[in-house]
Amino acid sequence: MTLTTTADGPDLDGVPAAVDVLLDGFFDRKAGRGRAPHLPHLVELLRAFTKGGKRLRPVLCARGWQAAGGGDPAAVLPAAASLELFHTFALIHDDVMDRSDTRRGRPTVHRLLAARARRHPHLLDAERFGDSGAILVGDLAMVWSDELFHDCGLPPERLAAARPFLDAMRGEVMHGQYLDVLSCTDFDSGLDAALNVIRYKTARYTVERPLQLGVALAGGGPPLLDACSAYGLPVGEAFQLRDDVIGVFGDPAVTGKSCLDDLREGKHTALLALALECADAAQARTLRALVGDPELDEEGAARIRSVLLSSGALDTVEHMITERRRRALRALEQAPFPAATRSALQQLAVDATERTS
Amino acid sequence: MTLTTTADGPDLDGVPAAVDVLLDGFFDRKAGRGRAPHLPHLVELLRAFTKGGKRLRPVLCARGWQAAGGGDPAAVLPAAASLELFHTFALIHDDVMDRSDTRRGRPTVHRLLAARARRHPHLLDAERFGDSGAILVGDLAMVWSDELFHDCGLPPERLAAARPFLDAMRGEVMHGQYLDVLSCTDFDSGLDAALNVIRYKTARYTVERPLQLGVALAGGGPPLLDACSAYGLPVGEAFQLRDDVIGVFGDPAVTGKSCLDDLREGKHTALLALALECADAAQARTLRALVGDPELDEEGAARIRSVLLSSGALDTVEHMITERRRRALRALEQAPFPAATRSALQQLAVDATERTS
Repeated sequence: MTLTTTADGPDLDGVPAAVDVLLDGFFDRKAGRGRAPHLPHLVELLRAFTKGGKRLRPVLCARGWQAAGGGDPAAVLPAAASLELFHTFALIHDDVMDRSDTRRGRPTVHRLLAARARRHPHLLDAERFGDSGAILVGDLAMVWSDELFHDCGLPPERLAAARPFLDAMRGEVMHGQYLDVLSCTDFDSGLDAALNVIRYKTARYTVERPLQLGVALAGGGPPLLDACSAYGLPVGEAFQLRDDVIGVFGDPAVTGKSCLDDLREGKHTALLALALECADAAQARTLRALVGDPELDEEGAARIRSVLLSSGALDTVEHMITERRRRALRALEQAPFPAATRSALQQLAVDATERTS
Repeated sequence: MTLTTTADGPDLDGVPAAVDVLLDGFFDRKAGRGRAPHLPHLVELLRAFTKGGKRLRPVLCARGWQAAGGGDPAAVLPAAASLELFHTFALIHDDVMDRSDTRRGRPTVHRLLAARARRHPHLLDAERFGDSGAILVGDLAMVWSDELFHDCGLPPERLAAARPFLDAMRGEVMHGQYLDVLSCTDFDSGLDAALNVIRYKTARYTVERPLQLGVALAGGGPPLLDACSAYGLPVGEAFQLRDDVIGVFGDPAVTGKSCLDDLREGKHTALLALALECADAAQARTLRALVGDPELDEEGAARIRSVLLSSGALDTVEHMITERRRRALRALEQAPFPAATRSALQQLAVDATERTS
């Protein structure tokens, strides 16, 4: 596994591609293992599903490594890749829970398995097989991500130093997902509850913890770890706020997923919480009637979008995104990071909050 | 954490109780962590669900440790307890996939969560909340089991030696569960497929790997590890064959779970595969009409049981159990285990195959 080296040191722009190569090799080894029936088929499902992500967590892990002067980034790639495989697990279970049909422009794992079962002559219950199979394929991705992490080749004392951040990250994302699911049962849980979900489910999981993991694997101490939080939490919140906007206003041709899913699911985002707080009586009636309707069509979605705009909720969320990006960039100025890390994280804060997919 | 010491050394009969104390302490620490919203509630769900198991995997892990001369068994207890928490994860997901109502005489996690959601004034979809919540609570048990394992206090080189057995165990049980779910889509997949499921899902997961994990944690080498397989695989298969018999012929008052679940689910056990192979035309029609019917009642179950008896399938399974127990006991005679381990594993082979719950 090599990355191009430039005058500024190793070029971390190659991390996503290098992670892909590494994961492919891992899947090859798993598929080639002996006579285990049906295992190669599960491996290929995981391989296909894992393709095409942004590799944001591995990139941030490599940036943390760089921030702490870890040296050759090739050494941190297996651990970084393990975060991507963990993310595969989280997405597969998320799709089952949200009953999503597509992800990254392709059918979700439970839909693929259900479709396969439907072609089977002895079918008992294809939908149920799809859900059960996806739960198990997700579980497999989780235990394999762990295997990839602890077999990553770094010295045991470095792994031991990083482990608390991995543990925290994994516990937090489950907990955040639970809060997210819980919030869907309560239409009026409010902005604070929505921001809590964002903190646990995204900000820590997507930005703060991957950065800290890279720092810890490189032997970095508290000042660096704290700087990861000061930057990571606001940028992670802004990332999720942008995600919520894209989930409703995004272009499916660009995002690879339906922009009806979040609305049909009744996902309790900050955007929706704000709209409910600012809405007049007629607007609130529209939201209550349409959000969470599993049969919602494009016309209904357009009416919801109109309320999100006219109530001022979208403007407020855009303002929250800007404010958090500003905080993240300010934290970055004070962070004890080398120049290459700082400028890359500046760019990332801008990209993550201005993206369209 | 202490265990009573007798003239023969530490008394491993105290392992289940010691594991319970240890898990309680772990849950206390998790519930006490800061201001994380709703987390204490999830911890209490896990604590309640984890109560009352046989602690078979921790006991076998402690026996492996003893077999390899690991010394004070208190040192292996956290790692042993981590297997129980992993098992909690596996059972919670299993119950979601099987749509089981009860486990160990109490409602399953997804049923508990659905019931709680139903009492909520803002309910959107209680069933779905129950399933999603249980998937996440299970995921949490899995990552916490990993935390308990690598924080167990044993030296890093011992953990590294044991890790391949933990990885293998976790991969195998997911894979076995997948084969199990897959077999439910195919009524005629036959005895070999059913025995494959048993091997991956139970024999390795429940007996061989926990024993090997204890051996590896104590620094034991290949002769001991091989002896764990020679004993563990047949006794594990016999254990699952007995489980399948109990699942259909067991007394719910003793087992704590319905004896209709497996039949309603259409679980493709060796018992059912044998019955289909031996059945005459009328018997086969009965099985095909009733097994897998989600509405199956006690009268229908009685008709299935009658076919399992009259076709000779039950007798054949009993013979298979006896034969496997014999093989396990013979392997034990040749195993390089100390006398205390040997006699405990002899007793376990008998208990596991003669049990009624």
